[in-house]
Amino acid sequence: MKQKITLKDIARELGVSISTVSKALKNSEEISRDTKERIQAFAKLYNYRPNNIAISLKNKRSRNIGVIIPNIVHHFFTTCVRGVELYANAKGYNVIVCLSDESFDKEVINMEMLANGSIDGFIMSLSMETMMKDDYNHLKEVTDQGIPLVLFDRTTDEVVCDKVVIGDREAAYMAVKKLIDSGRKRIGVITSDDYLIMVHDRMEGYKEALTEAGISIDENLILPMSQMQFDEEAVNAFLETQKVDAIVTVNEIFAVRAMKMAQRKGYKVPEDIAFIGFTDGLLSKYANPSLTSVDQHGELMGEHAARMLINKIESEQEEETYTTEILKATLIERESTP
Amino acid sequence: MKQKITLKDIARELGVSISTVSKALKNSEEISRDTKERIQAFAKLYNYRPNNIAISLKNKRSRNIGVIIPNIVHHFFTTCVRGVELYANAKGYNVIVCLSDESFDKEVINMEMLANGSIDGFIMSLSMETMMKDDYNHLKEVTDQGIPLVLFDRTTDEVVCDKVVIGDREAAYMAVKKLIDSGRKRIGVITSDDYLIMVHDRMEGYKEALTEAGISIDENLILPMSQMQFDEEAVNAFLETQKVDAIVTVNEIFAVRAMKMAQRKGYKVPEDIAFIGFTDGLLSKYANPSLTSVDQHGELMGEHAARMLINKIESEQEEETYTTEILKATLIERESTP
Repeated sequence: MKQKITLKDIARELGVSISTVSKALKNSEEISRDTKERIQAFAKLYNYRPNNIAISLKNKRSRNIGVIIPNIVHHFFTTCVRGVELYANAKGYNVIVCLSDESFDKEVINMEMLANGSIDGFIMSLSMETMMKDDYNHLKEVTDQGIPLVLFDRTTDEVVCDKVVIGDREAAYMAVKKLIDSGRKRIGVITSDDYLIMVHDRMEGYKEALTEAGISIDENLILPMSQMQFDEEAVNAFLETQKVDAIVTVNEIFAVRAMKMAQRKGYKVPEDIAFIGFTDGLLSKYANPSLTSVDQHGELMGEHAARMLINKIESEQEEETYTTEILKATLIERESTP
Repeated sequence: MKQKITLKDIARELGVSISTVSKALKNSEEISRDTKERIQAFAKLYNYRPNNIAISLKNKRSRNIGVIIPNIVHHFFTTCVRGVELYANAKGYNVIVCLSDESFDKEVINMEMLANGSIDGFIMSLSMETMMKDDYNHLKEVTDQGIPLVLFDRTTDEVVCDKVVIGDREAAYMAVKKLIDSGRKRIGVITSDDYLIMVHDRMEGYKEALTEAGISIDENLILPMSQMQFDEEAVNAFLETQKVDAIVTVNEIFAVRAMKMAQRKGYKVPEDIAFIGFTDGLLSKYANPSLTSVDQHGELMGEHAARMLINKIESEQEEETYTTEILKATLIERESTP
């Protein structure tokens, strides 16, 4: 785990005074050339930064928090922002929201803009493009500067910081197990071919529940949609050929759309086909029949992220530890399951 | 119309040089006491500000736009933000979003925070509380400082600035007229008791279409919901007693919920009761049957607001004029109307 190195750390490691370190880093004439070179090399090795930004933040906090989300026309992310707002406002912080629009460049631009002293810390969910590029240098620069960062939902192991995620594998396992327990055997899944850990984890949970129940995995029951676009033709063929008695989908739009198609074909929901979607939004609540869905607790996730961030901002400790909180998803049972 | 007064204006009005005005406002020893008092009094009268913020903005633009919306978990407002983003990004501007959460205080706090040099101009939709208080001094301060402001959707006549709104009255008229033209006579409306101009305008359009068709206004067919909360009991009684053959609602949630209740009571949609909602979001699109709804063009509204704002930011003119753009709503016809 990469820690922020302080003047004190360098002094202790090299057996000199803090003042010597400070002067050496400012290239003072008072310090011998040898000592200066040793200290400067050590500081460079451990990525020490004079850290003016962090110092000015500690002394003169802006009491603003920057939130960067990949998409604003998206129920889950907006509920996360609301959760951040609720907690941050109660603690006397303002929230500034920027959008990456799933673009790596926009994520970088927004971070640079906000890191310029406007905010005390970041709460972020990564853009799809960033995850595909697997390039997190813009995040590392921010954490290297001592600006606190909390990643939520779409995170990466490549960056050392606090994180809060939902247990996607467990959630999918729970949804599929519920269907198995109610007697369903041919459980289809409408998924995505996206490069997102959550999709991978949900598929793992799906397979785990089936395997555990002694039901073999039938690849024909797994229908991936390209780039999160619902393919009506493919779903039509799937419904006609696969004789599923239940369908789990990676989001609520897929569930509601597939459910409507099934109803139009004369299937009764949930008697003939049960449906469970991920993301508990308005669509799930007001569908006809209403949709059983996995509540990912966006608001709670936002609250946790804000709490973790504000704790870091207000912490006096120099040596920091980082944690990953895993929130437990809840299955909201409605009319689309027996 | 209140215009920003410049050094040049003061000089012209008082028949002195710009340099004299500038020195007098800085209380220079070079200018006689009489002249200084005259210039300072005039500047005060016309609310002249040395306007460091505006000057620094003109010279050193941040290329950031501040957007303040009342609620983020709200399809319409998020599509507006997306529209702002698309246009602003194409013009090389970043977008910073803050939420008022329908609170006057939060609106004021966010405006103060952003007006502090972080942004070149504001795009805003007023909070419910601000409209109720009828207090717009925080907006006037910003425009007095020469910071461009565009209001969208929820606006006020009290502030002189560019505005973009949807023709709510015309939209409601169009929706009700469509129902009348298809033979419906008992057209109910599920509305809100909120203090919002849009609600008022939609009711006007509803009444206008009926009156024009020679159908008298039956107050029993008007069902107001308190504070935008859907009252299931009231709607239930309404469906049972009023024998409506069509229902128009002020938002899509009301429409989808009432439609489901009607279906459960055995009414066929649209044969027995037709439904039209305002706000064309995911619910309308994926309801069963899909909902005919009034598209308020959130994305387009955001784009227009961004264009108006960036034009003002980049304008070299000192004497400015302000316009109000009225966008035309579109009726998206789906399965819930004949």
